[in-house]
Amino acid sequence: MSDYSKVRISGDRLWQRLMDMAKIGATDAGGCNRQALTDLDKEGRDLFIDWCHAAGCKVRIDQMGNVFARRAGLDNSLPPVITGSHLDTQPTGGKFDGVYGVLAGLEVIESLNDNKLQTKHPLEVVVWTNEEGARFSPAMIGSGVWCGEFDIEDAHVLADKDGLTIGDELKRIGYHGAEPCKIFPVKAAFETHIEQGPILEAEEKTIGIVTGVQGMRWYDVMIKGQPVHAGPTPMEVRRDPFRALTKTIDRIYALAEEHGPWGRATFGDIQAVPGARNTVPETLILAVDLRHPNQEVLEQMDKTFRIIVEEEALIAGVESTVKDEWDSPAVAFDKDCIEAVTKGVKSLNLPYKVMASGAGHDSVYVSRSAPTSMIFIPCKDGISHNEAEDAHPDDLTAGCNVLLQAMCEMAN
Amino acid sequence: MSDYSKVRISGDRLWQRLMDMAKIGATDAGGCNRQALTDLDKEGRDLFIDWCHAAGCKVRIDQMGNVFARRAGLDNSLPPVITGSHLDTQPTGGKFDGVYGVLAGLEVIESLNDNKLQTKHPLEVVVWTNEEGARFSPAMIGSGVWCGEFDIEDAHVLADKDGLTIGDELKRIGYHGAEPCKIFPVKAAFETHIEQGPILEAEEKTIGIVTGVQGMRWYDVMIKGQPVHAGPTPMEVRRDPFRALTKTIDRIYALAEEHGPWGRATFGDIQAVPGARNTVPETLILAVDLRHPNQEVLEQMDKTFRIIVEEEALIAGVESTVKDEWDSPAVAFDKDCIEAVTKGVKSLNLPYKVMASGAGHDSVYVSRSAPTSMIFIPCKDGISHNEAEDAHPDDLTAGCNVLLQAMCEMAN
Repeated sequence: MSDYSKVRISGDRLWQRLMDMAKIGATDAGGCNRQALTDLDKEGRDLFIDWCHAAGCKVRIDQMGNVFARRAGLDNSLPPVITGSHLDTQPTGGKFDGVYGVLAGLEVIESLNDNKLQTKHPLEVVVWTNEEGARFSPAMIGSGVWCGEFDIEDAHVLADKDGLTIGDELKRIGYHGAEPCKIFPVKAAFETHIEQGPILEAEEKTIGIVTGVQGMRWYDVMIKGQPVHAGPTPMEVRRDPFRALTKTIDRIYALAEEHGPWGRATFGDIQAVPGARNTVPETLILAVDLRHPNQEVLEQMDKTFRIIVEEEALIAGVESTVKDEWDSPAVAFDKDCIEAVTKGVKSLNLPYKVMASGAGHDSVYVSRSAPTSMIFIPCKDGISHNEAEDAHPDDLTAGCNVLLQAMCEMAN
Repeated sequence: MSDYSKVRISGDRLWQRLMDMAKIGATDAGGCNRQALTDLDKEGRDLFIDWCHAAGCKVRIDQMGNVFARRAGLDNSLPPVITGSHLDTQPTGGKFDGVYGVLAGLEVIESLNDNKLQTKHPLEVVVWTNEEGARFSPAMIGSGVWCGEFDIEDAHVLADKDGLTIGDELKRIGYHGAEPCKIFPVKAAFETHIEQGPILEAEEKTIGIVTGVQGMRWYDVMIKGQPVHAGPTPMEVRRDPFRALTKTIDRIYALAEEHGPWGRATFGDIQAVPGARNTVPETLILAVDLRHPNQEVLEQMDKTFRIIVEEEALIAGVESTVKDEWDSPAVAFDKDCIEAVTKGVKSLNLPYKVMASGAGHDSVYVSRSAPTSMIFIPCKDGISHNEAEDAHPDDLTAGCNVLLQAMCEMAN
């Protein structure tokens, strides 16, 4: 059983499967459009399950369409070590986001088969339903129901823009399984994923040992002044929300940098009301996104952010309000899982970086019910959610080898 | 003839006429909705012409519907001294914008009648068509055709949002006159108007001696960065257009202040593209409005503005473009007309301020063909283009007295 440390996975087979899966929903620009619970999603799931059966796995499907492919262990009364991600994509998505995490899991099982190695705990590869949230909002609904974040009844009635519901679409494509969608004992959970950011590539690291997921807070900041005519109104009598805006933004950037390198501040959208060229805006509405992987730090940033908004409005003689839009606490992954990944990385002698995930993943929900961690590999130019998404075969192989080591470590 | 210096107008009659005119198109909120060439505009024009006939004036209407009410002079071969403004309003306009300038002119004629005084030059009160531009764009089309800025054929085919044209609507309401709409010799032109700004009220001045109209330039500034995900992208590798935006805006405010108190900078609108909360915007589009009453200074501001935009984009590592949207050169009014107004103000011992107009008026176009200046009076809280627009009867009377003195000065 300890021979797994010598096992090296077949990068060719993993790559071939990634390319085969990418044909389902392939776009002209070289990406993938295989949205959740469409005919193409069914086709991708069917192909995956065929491969799992060929690898000797037993497949279960739950009432949210989550797929669990199980390789028996030496003691099947023990909780499984699981790994997985998602097969659905963005409308103009790539070939690797999610898919890599699913097929890397299958590759681990096949490599163990090839090497006739068994594990004490059973292993399971999971396909979580509707991770992207592109067709049905919110995202990560499959893992979300599984971990108890959402009720299945609420999830089943969620509709896409044509009014088709998750429940009906699951039945239509034959993936409304018999198994209840709820947590079961899990020994450890891993998810391999492309980084979806530029750090590993820039620093020439092959593996990101992911210790958690950034907490994030979304706000709408409303800055209200007085709408006056651009011509006859002297500068000094104006109550111009732009005066507060520029200082507010600059100070929030400074706040993120103060908590660098992981503190993040993003202003994705802004609106002026009424938005007339020759009128000082009555109101500016600024979308703010603050992130930090350490929940305490994030809460400190939240407090300072509110003070900044208030102070700068006061100084500029305008009014401000902060509307909370979303609060996703920081996730700290499991120490033992992180340790197992680290051990694997070191045994394989791969250049690595200990990091947090900036984006959400199914592992966020999984980690509520099971010891969890993630393994990142670089992606080209940090680009994801884009048809140009790309990853190097050597990195895909390396990440999968780390996954095999970590899963076996926890399963023995 | 020199006795006009003792004439004081009847503030009561002027006020009564303002209130009578305000009934035509009166809104529940106490304002006026009497848009150009509507049935209500016809009603207002008809009432005005009745008053002019009763005052012994001869009325001409030109092919743009501009109305000229003439009081004969002692030598009718001499060019007239004219005054006027407009009777049309914004959809939620007030009782004074434009109307005051027209009825003040009529009041001058009636006061001279009351005092049995004649002028050497004839006097004319003008109603310019569609000053507001609310129903038909562009604004100030009546005075614009008259001065030669627009062709009458082009003006007649301008349509409102229901497709009704100026030409057809002029005919429908009976104001498509026989007289060609074009410049004729004018000795001097004056326009009394509410300030539409807060300066006179704040400084407790009764009269604004208006020496010109601010030049203004409109631009769209496009700042282009790179759209990356708010989560996984480190702050230091982003090319974020907001980084250039805040510095650019702050420096443009400083530029306006450097050329204070008449330099003005306004950012009326802003847009983020794609405008997704968790993505650094690819592009920010900022509407910029720069003004100064001195054309040379405005041109200097224009040059510095372009340098600021370029420099800050360079510093932030993003790209910038400046798209010119509109260029309205500064207008310097006629020295003799300004002098006549000043003399009137001083003889009446009124507190005054020498100032530029921040907004456009028919006088901008009139000044291209005739010696012109304007007389401002305070309006409540600087509010205009608003049903709450208000002015004090004493100020309305004072402005009208100044107009009488200035017109008589130039007409003798």
